[in-house]
Amino acid sequence: MEFSSKLIEKAVNEMSQLPGIGKRTALRLVLHLLKQPKEQTGFLAQAIVTMREDIKYCESCHNISDSILCEICANKNRNHQIICIVEDIRDVMAIENTGQFRGIYHVLGGKISPIDGVGPSQLNITTLVEKVKSGSVNEIIFALSSTMEGDTTNFYIYKQIGESEIIISTIARGISVGDELEFADEVTLGRSILHRVPFEKAFKNN
Amino acid sequence: MEFSSKLIEKAVNEMSQLPGIGKRTALRLVLHLLKQPKEQTGFLAQAIVTMREDIKYCESCHNISDSILCEICANKNRNHQIICIVEDIRDVMAIENTGQFRGIYHVLGGKISPIDGVGPSQLNITTLVEKVKSGSVNEIIFALSSTMEGDTTNFYIYKQIGESEIIISTIARGISVGDELEFADEVTLGRSILHRVPFEKAFKNN
Repeated sequence: MEFSSKLIEKAVNEMSQLPGIGKRTALRLVLHLLKQPKEQTGFLAQAIVTMREDIKYCESCHNISDSILCEICANKNRNHQIICIVEDIRDVMAIENTGQFRGIYHVLGGKISPIDGVGPSQLNITTLVEKVKSGSVNEIIFALSSTMEGDTTNFYIYKQIGESEIIISTIARGISVGDELEFADEVTLGRSILHRVPFEKAFKNN
Repeated sequence: MEFSSKLIEKAVNEMSQLPGIGKRTALRLVLHLLKQPKEQTGFLAQAIVTMREDIKYCESCHNISDSILCEICANKNRNHQIICIVEDIRDVMAIENTGQFRGIYHVLGGKISPIDGVGPSQLNITTLVEKVKSGSVNEIIFALSSTMEGDTTNFYIYKQIGESEIIISTIARGISVGDELEFADEVTLGRSILHRVPFEKAFKNN
């Protein structure tokens, strides 16, 4: 792609570094900004720079936060004895949106993936193990991706925690709500039969 | 969508102002920036602000440019007697990429569209008419969208230019190269028959 302006070219190149944004989309965004008032571009630039510079991570659960403790960890009405372990801050938002969980979270910051060069030391595992061993936790729930990497991470943490008397569970795997049975894969279907739940319990929280 | 950080929320809101970017995509972009080095966000912000502040428009053709005249207008090897009239700077890039045009351009900055509140006075029409009336132009080519608004704009400019002795043409409308005939709409197919070209000429520049 040839640009008649070096300024445009530079802006497009920077924009196209973002995931899912190619050169063409980047150009469309840049030309859109050109048509808007100058302040708008200023606001956008300011917002992302401030966000990147001033963002903090919760000291307890490693969720993003504006203060030392995130709103969830600082909330005394939540059950601090149940920890839900997630990969990413996006997962916290997703689970919060369900409204089904009133405990606290622990954000690992990824999952163990040798292919991507991510080992246990790059994840927030030590602080989790310490928290569990301090005895203040009753239950931990693994809510990681249902993939090889997710399972590896689950297993690693499970081994690290060792023999403690807390309840360890993982989120249920089964048929998605609204899915037709005939299109479900065998492994999922098999698991959903293996981990069947009492009928009355299944519809309690629906 | 609930955010655990006001900074994130603000960045997402600003990002989602961009066309084609919803809240979810904006969040994905923001979380991506959080994982990259701080400088990267700085570079992006800097690039878009500098672009927006310092961008110039070519005094002759209104294309975007880093100097008073754009590279195309400043190029003496191009034929300054043929002007291709386009809506947008993106169209200049598209036509340049074909490598089939060696004249210069005139960017209108839009098309006449009463629904969107765009009248002739908001477009760069006066400078075009002056240029044509000054006598330095041999031919103008209309390369606007093949829509109601495009045709209205074509017709308006045509009337403004009045009776001059220059050649006035529009780009050919017909079946897209690579298209199956059975899927073409009737109007396009009709026009392609009406404006058929001599066989030898059709394949000359292929």
